[in-house]
Amino acid sequence: MKNEIDASNDAVHASNSAQSIEHIRHSLAHLLATATVSLYPDTLLTIGPAVENGFYYDMDFTAPLKDADLPVIEQKMRDILKEWTIASKKGSAPDAAHFLHKEVSVDEARAFFANNPYKLELIEDINAKGEKITLYTVGSGTAHEFTDLCRGGHADDMSTIDQNSFTITRVAGAYWRGDEKNKMLTRVYGLAFSTKDELKAYINQQEEAKKRDHRKLGKELKLFTISDLVGSGLPMFQPKGAHLRRTIEDYLWELHQDYGYERVWTPHLAKADLYVASGHGMHYLADMFSVHGGTSKEDFYVKPMSCPHHIQIFADNQFSYRDMPVRYFEAATVYRDEKTGQLGGLTRVRSITQDDGHLFCRMSQLTEEASIVVKIIKKFFSTMGMLDGYKVRLSLRDDNKETWLGTDEVWEIAEKGLIEVCKNENLPYFEGKGEAAFYGPKLDFMFKDAIGREHQLSTIQYDFNLPERFDLSYINEKGEKERPIMLHRAISGSIERFMAIMIEHFAGAFPVWMSPVQVKVVPIGERQFDFAHEVFATLKKADIRVEVDLSGDSLGKKIRNAKTDKIPYTLVIGDKEIENKTVTIESRTGNEGAVSVEDFIARIVSETKNRSL
Amino acid sequence: MKNEIDASNDAVHASNSAQSIEHIRHSLAHLLATATVSLYPDTLLTIGPAVENGFYYDMDFTAPLKDADLPVIEQKMRDILKEWTIASKKGSAPDAAHFLHKEVSVDEARAFFANNPYKLELIEDINAKGEKITLYTVGSGTAHEFTDLCRGGHADDMSTIDQNSFTITRVAGAYWRGDEKNKMLTRVYGLAFSTKDELKAYINQQEEAKKRDHRKLGKELKLFTISDLVGSGLPMFQPKGAHLRRTIEDYLWELHQDYGYERVWTPHLAKADLYVASGHGMHYLADMFSVHGGTSKEDFYVKPMSCPHHIQIFADNQFSYRDMPVRYFEAATVYRDEKTGQLGGLTRVRSITQDDGHLFCRMSQLTEEASIVVKIIKKFFSTMGMLDGYKVRLSLRDDNKETWLGTDEVWEIAEKGLIEVCKNENLPYFEGKGEAAFYGPKLDFMFKDAIGREHQLSTIQYDFNLPERFDLSYINEKGEKERPIMLHRAISGSIERFMAIMIEHFAGAFPVWMSPVQVKVVPIGERQFDFAHEVFATLKKADIRVEVDLSGDSLGKKIRNAKTDKIPYTLVIGDKEIENKTVTIESRTGNEGAVSVEDFIARIVSETKNRSL
Repeated sequence: MKNEIDASNDAVHASNSAQSIEHIRHSLAHLLATATVSLYPDTLLTIGPAVENGFYYDMDFTAPLKDADLPVIEQKMRDILKEWTIASKKGSAPDAAHFLHKEVSVDEARAFFANNPYKLELIEDINAKGEKITLYTVGSGTAHEFTDLCRGGHADDMSTIDQNSFTITRVAGAYWRGDEKNKMLTRVYGLAFSTKDELKAYINQQEEAKKRDHRKLGKELKLFTISDLVGSGLPMFQPKGAHLRRTIEDYLWELHQDYGYERVWTPHLAKADLYVASGHGMHYLADMFSVHGGTSKEDFYVKPMSCPHHIQIFADNQFSYRDMPVRYFEAATVYRDEKTGQLGGLTRVRSITQDDGHLFCRMSQLTEEASIVVKIIKKFFSTMGMLDGYKVRLSLRDDNKETWLGTDEVWEIAEKGLIEVCKNENLPYFEGKGEAAFYGPKLDFMFKDAIGREHQLSTIQYDFNLPERFDLSYINEKGEKERPIMLHRAISGSIERFMAIMIEHFAGAFPVWMSPVQVKVVPIGERQFDFAHEVFATLKKADIRVEVDLSGDSLGKKIRNAKTDKIPYTLVIGDKEIENKTVTIESRTGNEGAVSVEDFIARIVSETKNRSL
Repeated sequence: MKNEIDASNDAVHASNSAQSIEHIRHSLAHLLATATVSLYPDTLLTIGPAVENGFYYDMDFTAPLKDADLPVIEQKMRDILKEWTIASKKGSAPDAAHFLHKEVSVDEARAFFANNPYKLELIEDINAKGEKITLYTVGSGTAHEFTDLCRGGHADDMSTIDQNSFTITRVAGAYWRGDEKNKMLTRVYGLAFSTKDELKAYINQQEEAKKRDHRKLGKELKLFTISDLVGSGLPMFQPKGAHLRRTIEDYLWELHQDYGYERVWTPHLAKADLYVASGHGMHYLADMFSVHGGTSKEDFYVKPMSCPHHIQIFADNQFSYRDMPVRYFEAATVYRDEKTGQLGGLTRVRSITQDDGHLFCRMSQLTEEASIVVKIIKKFFSTMGMLDGYKVRLSLRDDNKETWLGTDEVWEIAEKGLIEVCKNENLPYFEGKGEAAFYGPKLDFMFKDAIGREHQLSTIQYDFNLPERFDLSYINEKGEKERPIMLHRAISGSIERFMAIMIEHFAGAFPVWMSPVQVKVVPIGERQFDFAHEVFATLKKADIRVEVDLSGDSLGKKIRNAKTDKIPYTLVIGDKEIENKTVTIESRTGNEGAVSVEDFIARIVSETKNRSL
């Protein structure tokens, strides 16, 4: 399932409906070039596209550009934009803020860019493809008139661009045309948004994201380890990280168990034959790890998904219609290869633990089963505090019958059922016509984290293909074999990636129920060690995850250490606490005063049970 | 850790101290040959050794041997043995019951076996190796005098062999010298023990084992699935088998959690570099699965054990003496390659889930930590009803310092500590001098199942090698780096193999706490469906694993089905039960009469909590 795979491990960006912002970003790349050649006239321009959140321009400078030069370029951009705006508004150069378009012959283009080998190379390419060559001019009639080789796609009027909605952020090296055999150019990056507030929000989000970086926090909080000997993309979980994993996995299972799901267990290897049967062997080999036995000399693969295994379990039973639907659940680690350079922390990994479920349904059961999954998804993300502003994409088939598999009738029922689910469950959904997988329609869920970043996480996918390929059946009321329909579904997607999101979403300060350590008991000095240990033992007996600090550090240092470890509650123990048999609570919100040990236990137990945020 | 590996996946047989039984078995192979050539004079003899539990002889018959011929051969053996015994005792042929030995020249041997090409081939081999050629004669002076080419190792006196202590069991095909290019011979198998009671006990055990075969029960009880597409040795667990796995794993963890163990999680792959560092890459490659990325083109292995991964987690922390010992636990699935033909059910698998623990200790902590593991082992096997007649092998180093690693002082302390553990814990241990691994001494635990078969399961191994190879350290009281000692340990060994043992140990009738389904509610007819469902819902709410049979089958059939599924309790519901709000219990011991639902729940909850057998 290529699509299933994407959903579970890739960050997918929200669809950008605002076409104009891309045009503005592209136009600002032209402005960046205008400002740069105005400041450094011998600079050779190459290409400058719009990108996510902004734009860049690759240029060949005569002398290296320094970070200190960036504000100067940015100011020059503002000055020129102002000049164009005034000239355009006052009428001294009415077209200054517009892009004027001119189609030229190859020879004209060659002549215009005679001194720029990069542009000449581009011209030859365009010509070779038989495409038209167009030049775009902005600022015409002003001192900073600027013409570039370009395919178009600009803002209608540059005078409407807010001077403070863009900024130049950084430089980086970039090989000409991305080929390391070519010359290294200088790439100047800018950010640009529709408004200055959006830009500000984005910059703040980036700064906040840096502070919350799960790689940094993962190290500080001793959650996971990445070792050169084991390899990148293969994180190992230290006790605290392993606890966090298990807490999330256990909660996911808890949400399923009342809905008739059953847990299965399947191994991480399978013979190549399994993937010939499933079809993955044809289309998915580049992402798979092949395995070769040292003694048997047999060939296997590490499983890149669990569906074919679960199908084997289903097929080993001859179920009847009374047993349907059959619902298998397994939090299974699958392995997918990616380029080493693209791996990072827990976000892009090769070991992917999916909260994987496969349902085998009758046609009439699909809609109810999908509804149940939607309920689980809503409950799970509500608990995580991520239900605000979530979105759902309903991917439907296109009109071209060649591109999908299964009868019109089956698709019709399935799609109508999914629309019904979206409506009954009040999902904030939008339709993606032609975005269905060839094997069935699907729902994808996008959730926002605490700093507004969107992540595609849950998925519900119908599958008309695999039951066919594996000739699956159940016995219907008439005693005949009937083909089930499969439903692939995942709630968190990949536990590893979801943990990365959780670490950043909570900035490491997990809610009590998720915290690997819930309470730190801190005696002021040695005199309070005995009572501190008594409190520690009492909490431990109540199944509270507690540590006690019996070091010789000062009280301030001990409290600071607990805060650095992001432990939800620090219990300070002094003489008064011993006398009154109380503990003084230092929580994330500050000093909450003294309470009895019993009351504190009741509070933690309640917060854990309710999974309070 | 080659030894660790053997302990966790191999069936290891009890050491056989009775040398004489092997001699008797070997002598009976001669008797079998005597009887066979007496009945079928044209039969060509080849080789006939003693084996575990008996003996065989490979022979080249002129006509195929049928099963019906075996009792005839067996009777002939008895007759001849009687003849020899009487001749020997009465003095008519005093040597008849003894093996007479004669060294002969190659030519003499060739002449003696001139008509037997197999023996001639053996003679040439012995001669080529420069070894002496010996002939052994038994029954000399009787009508059944028999001489064979043989290296020796016989019973001193065949007249003491009990006529009923052996039997001929079966025939099988066997290629001459095990080479399929050679002629197929007929192998006649016999069983032999020191007494007829032992023989009888063994035959009973074999019959019982056949009934309990976990492959048969695993299919009947829907515990696991082995698929041709996934491959042999890679079992998949159906919901009920997955439940059993988890129950065992959870109990194992429960036994550890109060002793300071912490759970970690590590991936199933690692770069080849890890196994170069650990040394497994040199000595263990034949058992390892090599892995090749489809995109990255990097080389990995599937982990054949978790120790090197756990070492990476340890090394990522700079622990101080205050943190020691550090105890990691992970029920991790490791993969080891074996010949496809040697795989079977859950006993010999390629996916091996170890209840694996690695401790990093100071020298002074080893003995206490080993004691804790012993306590866990005793508790675990007591719960399983396997503590009767268990044995422990204490493997110590030999006198040759070349064969082991580490200082004399360290070994001295470690071995003394282990002896102390054996004594303090009253272990039924025996010493195996020279049986230690090169990296440290160890304890191996052998437990007997319900039908008396012995299985080597738990292991505790000291390791002076890996901490050295990975340059591990902790900071001691003086602020200096000090090398920890590792302790590898496993309780059940491999969950898969242990499940096979449990299925056969309990003959599928698991105690209530382990049973995937604990209770089956069986209404007599449709009139009782409502109350049956009410009882079902009440039990389910009390976290009891319950099913209800709402089929149209007869009461007898429904109860039989529940018994076939080995469900501990069937609750029969008729009109009287509805009237009195009771359930009538059909347990494994028979009809136990009617009780209230509340009382029944209390009973199940108590049996589950106490893990009653």
